[in-house]
Amino acid sequence: MSTSSSPDTPAVIVEHFDTYASLTLNRPASYNALSEEMMAALQEALNTLAQDARLHCIVIKAAGKAFCAGHNLKEMRAQPEQAYYERLFQQCSKMMQSIVHFPVPVIAQVHGMATAAGCQLVASCDLALASDDASFAVSGINVGLFCSTPAVALSRNIGSKAALEMLMTGRFISAAQAQAQGLINHSVPGPDLATATQELVQAICSKSPAAVRTGKAMFYKQAALPLEQAYDYAGHVMACNMMHADATEGIDAFIEKRPAVWGKTA
Amino acid sequence: MSTSSSPDTPAVIVEHFDTYASLTLNRPASYNALSEEMMAALQEALNTLAQDARLHCIVIKAAGKAFCAGHNLKEMRAQPEQAYYERLFQQCSKMMQSIVHFPVPVIAQVHGMATAAGCQLVASCDLALASDDASFAVSGINVGLFCSTPAVALSRNIGSKAALEMLMTGRFISAAQAQAQGLINHSVPGPDLATATQELVQAICSKSPAAVRTGKAMFYKQAALPLEQAYDYAGHVMACNMMHADATEGIDAFIEKRPAVWGKTA
Amino acid sequence: MSTSSSPDTPAVIVEHFDTYASLTLNRPASYNALSEEMMAALQEALNTLAQDARLHCIVIKAAGKAFCAGHNLKEMRAQPEQAYYERLFQQCSKMMQSIVHFPVPVIAQVHGMATAAGCQLVASCDLALASDDASFAVSGINVGLFCSTPAVALSRNIGSKAALEMLMTGRFISAAQAQAQGLINHSVPGPDLATATQELVQAICSKSPAAVRTGKAMFYKQAALPLEQAYDYAGHVMACNMMHADATEGIDAFIEKRPAVWGKTA
Repeated sequence: MSTSSSPDTPAVIVEHFDTYASLTLNRPASYNALSEEMMAALQEALNTLAQDARLHCIVIKAAGKAFCAGHNLKEMRAQPEQAYYERLFQQCSKMMQSIVHFPVPVIAQVHGMATAAGCQLVASCDLALASDDASFAVSGINVGLFCSTPAVALSRNIGSKAALEMLMTGRFISAAQAQAQGLINHSVPGPDLATATQELVQAICSKSPAAVRTGKAMFYKQAALPLEQAYDYAGHVMACNMMHADATEGIDAFIEKRPAVWGKTA
Repeated sequence: MSTSSSPDTPAVIVEHFDTYASLTLNRPASYNALSEEMMAALQEALNTLAQDARLHCIVIKAAGKAFCAGHNLKEMRAQPEQAYYERLFQQCSKMMQSIVHFPVPVIAQVHGMATAAGCQLVASCDLALASDDASFAVSGINVGLFCSTPAVALSRNIGSKAALEMLMTGRFISAAQAQAQGLINHSVPGPDLATATQELVQAICSKSPAAVRTGKAMFYKQAALPLEQAYDYAGHVMACNMMHADATEGIDAFIEKRPAVWGKTA
Repeated sequence: MSTSSSPDTPAVIVEHFDTYASLTLNRPASYNALSEEMMAALQEALNTLAQDARLHCIVIKAAGKAFCAGHNLKEMRAQPEQAYYERLFQQCSKMMQSIVHFPVPVIAQVHGMATAAGCQLVASCDLALASDDASFAVSGINVGLFCSTPAVALSRNIGSKAALEMLMTGRFISAAQAQAQGLINHSVPGPDLATATQELVQAICSKSPAAVRTGKAMFYKQAALPLEQAYDYAGHVMACNMMHADATEGIDAFIEKRPAVWGKTA
């Protein structure tokens, strides 16, 4: 396990596979803190990958002992100006929202600690798997800095009382608690984490990429609408989806009891 | 168990009991798929029963091995026009919202599989009981058709990450998982399902029908309002409820330690 | 344990400790029902304590066998006028919202039964601990009075189906169920409840009071906003928080591996 954080190694390692990509947070010596460098590298990787039409999903994981320790406190203290902090949290919030708006599902693969904005990163992903010894906290309150931006993502994943307990006490929750409360999908023994992620990746990669992309965007949009408007919007999206060649092929294949072949010309 | 689906048998069997009614999806050979015929029959039954002032609640259950397999894919493929699909999903969304707006609680009694719009049907009901071997999926993604309209109901029952996992992978969840996540209220052994439903029905039928009707409508309306407006609205509804003869009688009976008699003239 | 409810004893006992205060509902003979007297006493205590800048959090607990039995039904029946009921529920809703808007966290310490508006009181608190034999119900439906105002708080704590089951059947849920569903944070054996509350109080009291106050207000405000607006607001709040002396001190102490001292002059 490398603990190097030399400026020569990239802050985020992007690896391309057949139909997915992985992003590895690569500053293990600083527990992959979301320094300006790290956030910029994540933003750039997300911007680039968002243009890649071959992707069915992406994975965010981390090198070293921890997933992500949140903001880089030393860096923050070095520039004590409100305008700087406004820009810094804007940069972070933009990156987190880039995950929500990313055209295909983003899967967090979490081991070790995910704290503060690191916990927010997990909450911001569409799906999350964790090793059973992973732990999660929004610990800014311990240093006099309430985790306000992490609270935005956290409170959209778990219940109000559970979120407030984490935010007000800074206490860690276990992977089992995170799963019960909805912060992650599943936890597995550490040695099985990469395999579990691969199974989830492959499950998504086996689907129609058009349907996956349509679905992710519509999911968050409908969730913010009142019921009747949500149904009007969803019905229209689904009617358009039915006119796509992949739906035609998928339904025909189902009826004919054969595997579907996605991406045929309509 | 009949597997007949002759056009002579009704798609939905409506049975009237003293103070409740049951609707049985009755196309077991097609796993009670929500064909146009089935949706029309459900809509008609809901419209008629909504006028019946004697009802305290209704139950939706199903004949055969499955609860409901979602849309009828063969029927959908036979008419490949966007305008048709728009109408079809409007018809379905209207029916699902008729359950939400139905004047008394709607209880799903689920056995076997509830998939795609069948899972949406469970999510749309106010209450749901299931046999412990029931299973739930939003499986459109398997045929290239993201379950957009089911997502509307599902995401109003369970957390974001759990919903997205189901929608993106098409995987089944068990009755136990459905209960833990909030898609159903309880699961019971299959042979006990009808009895458990009866107990829930009788619990509701023993209450003031006026209070039950008032309550269901106010519940969904307040949930869509900001906190202060929700309280203003709820307080007004509750003050009106206090002026109803059933509240007077109910409170007097409680104070006098005797059973209440609902429906006295004020 | 006193069961006296003489008018000479206060309806709510307020005790001041170093950095927190406790409110004890003190009408055990009426199971601490939220009579007009009790609601007025709670409102007055909340109004007064809201001005006390020394507080880090407050605890609401109860004397006698029950936490709180909800509204006082005898009192309500004695004045059968809609205008009176409108005022009564406004009074109650205002008090409940005073908890949500209270400047520091409000912790419910629950033993025995918490029913109707008593259950709403638990739901309205930011955090809640309960003895493992505590039980919770919104039982108005049993007397012909749907718990409309309690539904407002309850449905902002637990899922829709779980809330509707409680509201439509009046059934009790156990402390374990309340914890699984999100109505309370944790349950502990009865003899350990006071100690568990003390640990939670001390965890909050050890944090920067400025950060705790900032955090509570922002939490509920952001939760009501769309995602992008929530992030814009949260980022600004957090930038301001960074300019506070407590954040400076907290981060410096963290970097220097020493305990932080809150409240230094900036």
